[in-house]
Amino acid sequence: MSYASNTMKLEIAWAHCDPAGIVWNPRFFEFFDTATWRLFEVVLGLPRDKLVSHHGIWGIPLIEASANFQVPLAFGDSAEIVTTIKELGRSSFALSHKIMKSGKLAVDGHEKRVWAGEDPEQPGRLRGVPLPKEIVAKLAG
Amino acid sequence: MSYASNTMKLEIAWAHCDPAGIVWNPRFFEFFDTATWRLFEVVLGLPRDKLVSHHGIWGIPLIEASANFQVPLAFGDSAEIVTTIKELGRSSFALSHKIMKSGKLAVDGHEKRVWAGEDPEQPGRLRGVPLPKEIVAKLAG
Amino acid sequence: MSYASNTMKLEIAWAHCDPAGIVWNPRFFEFFDTATWRLFEVVLGLPRDKLVSHHGIWGIPLIEASANFQVPLAFGDSAEIVTTIKELGRSSFALSHKIMKSGKLAVDGHEKRVWAGEDPEQPGRLRGVPLPKEIVAKLAG
Amino acid sequence: MSYASNTMKLEIAWAHCDPAGIVWNPRFFEFFDTATWRLFEVVLGLPRDKLVSHHGIWGIPLIEASANFQVPLAFGDSAEIVTTIKELGRSSFALSHKIMKSGKLAVDGHEKRVWAGEDPEQPGRLRGVPLPKEIVAKLAG
Repeated sequence: MSYASNTMKLEIAWAHCDPAGIVWNPRFFEFFDTATWRLFEVVLGLPRDKLVSHHGIWGIPLIEASANFQVPLAFGDSAEIVTTIKELGRSSFALSHKIMKSGKLAVDGHEKRVWAGEDPEQPGRLRGVPLPKEIVAKLAG
Repeated sequence: MSYASNTMKLEIAWAHCDPAGIVWNPRFFEFFDTATWRLFEVVLGLPRDKLVSHHGIWGIPLIEASANFQVPLAFGDSAEIVTTIKELGRSSFALSHKIMKSGKLAVDGHEKRVWAGEDPEQPGRLRGVPLPKEIVAKLAG
Repeated sequence: MSYASNTMKLEIAWAHCDPAGIVWNPRFFEFFDTATWRLFEVVLGLPRDKLVSHHGIWGIPLIEASANFQVPLAFGDSAEIVTTIKELGRSSFALSHKIMKSGKLAVDGHEKRVWAGEDPEQPGRLRGVPLPKEIVAKLAG
Repeated sequence: MSYASNTMKLEIAWAHCDPAGIVWNPRFFEFFDTATWRLFEVVLGLPRDKLVSHHGIWGIPLIEASANFQVPLAFGDSAEIVTTIKELGRSSFALSHKIMKSGKLAVDGHEKRVWAGEDPEQPGRLRGVPLPKEIVAKLAG
């Protein structure tokens, strides 16, 4: 079994950089977020903004995020982010985000998210709900 | 008649600055947004997150924003932003945001916003609704 | 004479949106900034990060920015931003940024910037310096 | 031996929140960054923007960052971030950032950074340099 993966281009803008002239670290977590939505869109064939309404969930909130910063990215750099599903639990899933620059691993990121909807026992409260079988099938590739 | 005004401190963080070492311009519009909510909170005596629910509106969307950037702000600078109501229409209002550094005007900003709720004629659609009299009274100071 | 123009695609990400579910206004000024650098890159045929070093300037700081927000953009929207040079002064220039969604003008933005380098009379100080003739020729289309 | 610690207030603004109405995750890494600079300022008694120039370093780049998100923070929430030095290596150091809301741990964050300056063997290149003894003494509290 191989897990779903997607590659997205990154063009480093002035807007992404800090006074050291390199990408300001919180931006990498923004890139991870955008790459996760993109992976779902590509793999599920469903526009990003329809994921939530189509599946009757409330969202895919992040419960853990981490990154190792190995090579800085600077204004004008072109890079790509390779996003891969790493774990599929009952209602949670993990992703790897590898940002590559000129073939080298620049940032090694991880996210853990929950497939979350309304708690049937406590209306108005969010909780993890089971990942639909057809989504597991597509993400497990 | 004098209009309501509020002053908020700004401490320029590394996070706010760009590769030129100065505040990245879009951040100023973020500061204006935060300062507008703060003015409402201070003048109306209502927590920011209650403004919308208390008054049955959907928000205070921006319809115009502008700024002149006269003196750059850099990492470590202390400044203040003086926010003043400038116009009160039936359902719109304008604000001035003057960012002062060491007594000099560094950024001269303006916003125009709408007091917006659900359109009674088109449910589910947003439109300007009349500013409540007690809010006009407080903002007109 | 017609001025240089460039069109850039915008894909609205979750990352760009606020609690009202629409693009958070300061993000538009970020889009303008990225679109300005992109216009220079396309028109001058010079990578963005080389513009400053190649021409011996310090940057293209913003001195004025404004926008009218006419149609909201939401998560998942596709749009485009049409950036056009509007004025070319001795050392300053103005740009128009029109964000179009489904053929309608959603955001009408303007920027005024300076072609800035070191002040020959006060080393270490920034000031406007004359726009090089070859750049004026290319921007004036 | 106890390590240096500092507590900073956080007021959650509209600007910090995403379409789910809660703090957008990359903002937490921005808060960590600002809290780290603040800790240095408080403990060393040196304005943030002087840390780098005073010690002849180039910066304190992040090499690892992680967070567990346990309780969401929403627009209008007041919270605090407790930042504590956790490890002091020869040229690296680790920090813990605990964001507390109403006495509960909302976000549990970690950073690892390097005390970085110019590589004496490769001018123009950044590398970790030894943490000055007086800084170790103050951070080790």
